[in-house]
Amino acid sequence: MQQTYIRDLAAQAGQEVELRGWIYNFRSSGKLKFILLRDGTGIVQCVLSKKEVSDEIWQASEDLAQETSVVLRGKVNADDRAPGGFELWTSDLRVVGRAVDYPITPKEHGDAFLLDHRHLWIRSKRQHAILRVRHTLVQAIRDFFDGRGYTLIDAPIFTPAASEGTTTLFETDYFGEKAYLSQSGQLYMEPAAAAFGKVYCFGPTFRAEKSKTRKHLTEFWMVEPEVAFMELPELMELAEDFIVHLVTRALERNRADLEILERDLAKLEAVQKPFPRLHYNDAANTLKAKGVDFQYGNDFGAPDEEALVADYDRPIIVHRFPAAIKAFYMKPDPEDPSLSLSMDVLAPEGYGEIVGGSQREDDLEVLERKIREHNLPMSAFDWYVDVRRYGTFPHAGFGLGLERTVSWITGVRHVRETIPFPRLMHRLKP
Amino acid sequence: MQQTYIRDLAAQAGQEVELRGWIYNFRSSGKLKFILLRDGTGIVQCVLSKKEVSDEIWQASEDLAQETSVVLRGKVNADDRAPGGFELWTSDLRVVGRAVDYPITPKEHGDAFLLDHRHLWIRSKRQHAILRVRHTLVQAIRDFFDGRGYTLIDAPIFTPAASEGTTTLFETDYFGEKAYLSQSGQLYMEPAAAAFGKVYCFGPTFRAEKSKTRKHLTEFWMVEPEVAFMELPELMELAEDFIVHLVTRALERNRADLEILERDLAKLEAVQKPFPRLHYNDAANTLKAKGVDFQYGNDFGAPDEEALVADYDRPIIVHRFPAAIKAFYMKPDPEDPSLSLSMDVLAPEGYGEIVGGSQREDDLEVLERKIREHNLPMSAFDWYVDVRRYGTFPHAGFGLGLERTVSWITGVRHVRETIPFPRLMHRLKP
Repeated sequence: MQQTYIRDLAAQAGQEVELRGWIYNFRSSGKLKFILLRDGTGIVQCVLSKKEVSDEIWQASEDLAQETSVVLRGKVNADDRAPGGFELWTSDLRVVGRAVDYPITPKEHGDAFLLDHRHLWIRSKRQHAILRVRHTLVQAIRDFFDGRGYTLIDAPIFTPAASEGTTTLFETDYFGEKAYLSQSGQLYMEPAAAAFGKVYCFGPTFRAEKSKTRKHLTEFWMVEPEVAFMELPELMELAEDFIVHLVTRALERNRADLEILERDLAKLEAVQKPFPRLHYNDAANTLKAKGVDFQYGNDFGAPDEEALVADYDRPIIVHRFPAAIKAFYMKPDPEDPSLSLSMDVLAPEGYGEIVGGSQREDDLEVLERKIREHNLPMSAFDWYVDVRRYGTFPHAGFGLGLERTVSWITGVRHVRETIPFPRLMHRLKP
Repeated sequence: MQQTYIRDLAAQAGQEVELRGWIYNFRSSGKLKFILLRDGTGIVQCVLSKKEVSDEIWQASEDLAQETSVVLRGKVNADDRAPGGFELWTSDLRVVGRAVDYPITPKEHGDAFLLDHRHLWIRSKRQHAILRVRHTLVQAIRDFFDGRGYTLIDAPIFTPAASEGTTTLFETDYFGEKAYLSQSGQLYMEPAAAAFGKVYCFGPTFRAEKSKTRKHLTEFWMVEPEVAFMELPELMELAEDFIVHLVTRALERNRADLEILERDLAKLEAVQKPFPRLHYNDAANTLKAKGVDFQYGNDFGAPDEEALVADYDRPIIVHRFPAAIKAFYMKPDPEDPSLSLSMDVLAPEGYGEIVGGSQREDDLEVLERKIREHNLPMSAFDWYVDVRRYGTFPHAGFGLGLERTVSWITGVRHVRETIPFPRLMHRLKP
């Protein structure tokens, strides 16, 4: 008999079906057993009555434990009182695999214990909900750019050079040479934009940061669009449209998951255009006015970000950061060359920076001077500067970190729960 | 004035538009210039007449070279004689960036030269066509699994252990520990299948193979579905459906690209269900009958694969390879335990193995014995065997290599052209 998935039960009301899955929970009341079965697509209550089944089947049911794998057959019964509106009147039960002393029980467990058991933890309702939202957002990211005529150009992971400093790079021996794991696909997106006009990459990126905050992973996914002939104001609009699209999609497709996570949906529904835009100078003044201990010229730390977003119900865009704290490839602001044509999007509610981007330096000589000033090896960037040598053009792009975005949208405070198998400074397993 | 993209010109017939892009080619006939402009979405002919424009604009047009970036304005004229059916009657031309001695000219270049200039090579028509097919296939891969209710579970890149031997692993220092770059997400997909039923991962994987064949990259993308309660026969059907879906999508969406690549479309149209299934023993006999020098018990080399697929017009599935040449986690064939419940899909026309998969060992004791027999460290797999400890279940999955699939579908013989920035044994740049 073919397997029916729990999410498809509505179409099978009144029919005999076979369900396959794992025991989520169960209770017994004398001659009746109520089994909560999960199969990855949902949870359904399966009712087993001693007088309706053989002794052998009843006996097998005595052996059930949390996470025992089973195959059940029975009739789908529509019942408004049942969770999900359907239950199974079980006529047959076969144990496939026993589960003795499953480590994750309904009681509370510590973080380290749960992370050590991540391969089992992902079976839980809450982790399910988070990872389903993640899946929706991955789809939404690709749909957004595919739907706007962007070409996907996967960036390489092995790179000979670093785009933003070398202290946070993972290094590997590459047949006798040194290779580094990519921190960003941007350097590759620029020549790709010269080839395809509008491009994006979306893949894992790596930072060997000795950071143990709730916003850092050593391995995380980033999407990076890059657009030929785009300048900073349009880039801010693109980021705005993109983020509204992501939030809208999650609200459309994952309302039930967000409810499991007890996310305040009103806070997500408020995420509409336009996002407030703050010039860096104004942001610095705002912090000063709020009495935050912030030094003009610095990047924002978590407390600064929290103070800045506190007045708004949606993401804010801070633009024109000091050139000195930004990467060499960012174009200076013609109105004040000490600033750069850069922008960050800060999520509301203190979830921090989710987007960083800029218009790129498109003048060959200026870019080469910047590379020298940053003490970067010109030989590593000869191909990159070719974008300016052969038909240069204004262009701009940004990167959005997937895990921080999932964290914000799900309302889950630590990014380690937003990726199936998180990699942290002291966590490489499972 | 807003930018119009060349692919959208049809909707602008008779209108004034602004195009932005690069000079693909041009010719002059006295007082007329015919400029082929490319903008990443297409190529259009732009006609410039000396008597219709100012001296300044005409002067600027004398300065054009291949890959000069320009902004053109003019009226869109429908003309059946023009390539693409439209041309631009140019009224304004502005040079944005010059291009002196662009290195890739219409003459022939050697492979090494083109690979050294990959960042520019991707501007060419042929590379465009290949990478657009790649994009379509990436979408098709995700759509296939998303549409069938699979949950995307991204596998980690950093792993503490190798799933298939350690000789071909890239290693990195991970805060004092050793970490390896993933060769496959499969070990992570199995616990994920216990959580979500049907899952897939799709991301870059790494092999430090000292191989210089046209089928090998050190970094390539792989999609890996894993399905709870699935056994080998259904796995073969899944692979078959999946591959037909991919080829159909490319034919639907990329016919023009495939024509640029001079792909024989009849060969792709022949890719229909059912794919022939060959038991390994029968495949070995076939090779013997064909006089191929093949030793029973070995894996197939390229000449063996070519001999096997020669009789068929579509992919073939070879199943039940000897257990000794397959990974420790594959389940033995109950009818002959020296064989495994494994399968490979071989592409037609000698493009080689594009899919490898198996039903997994689901018995805890057997799996632990296999790990010991393969001299693998049990401590690295304690979490993995938990899938069998807590509610074990039959399950199966496969991996499909993206670049080999693109290579086959586009008819491009070397995988290095099927990924934007290929990584080969001696190639890490650009």
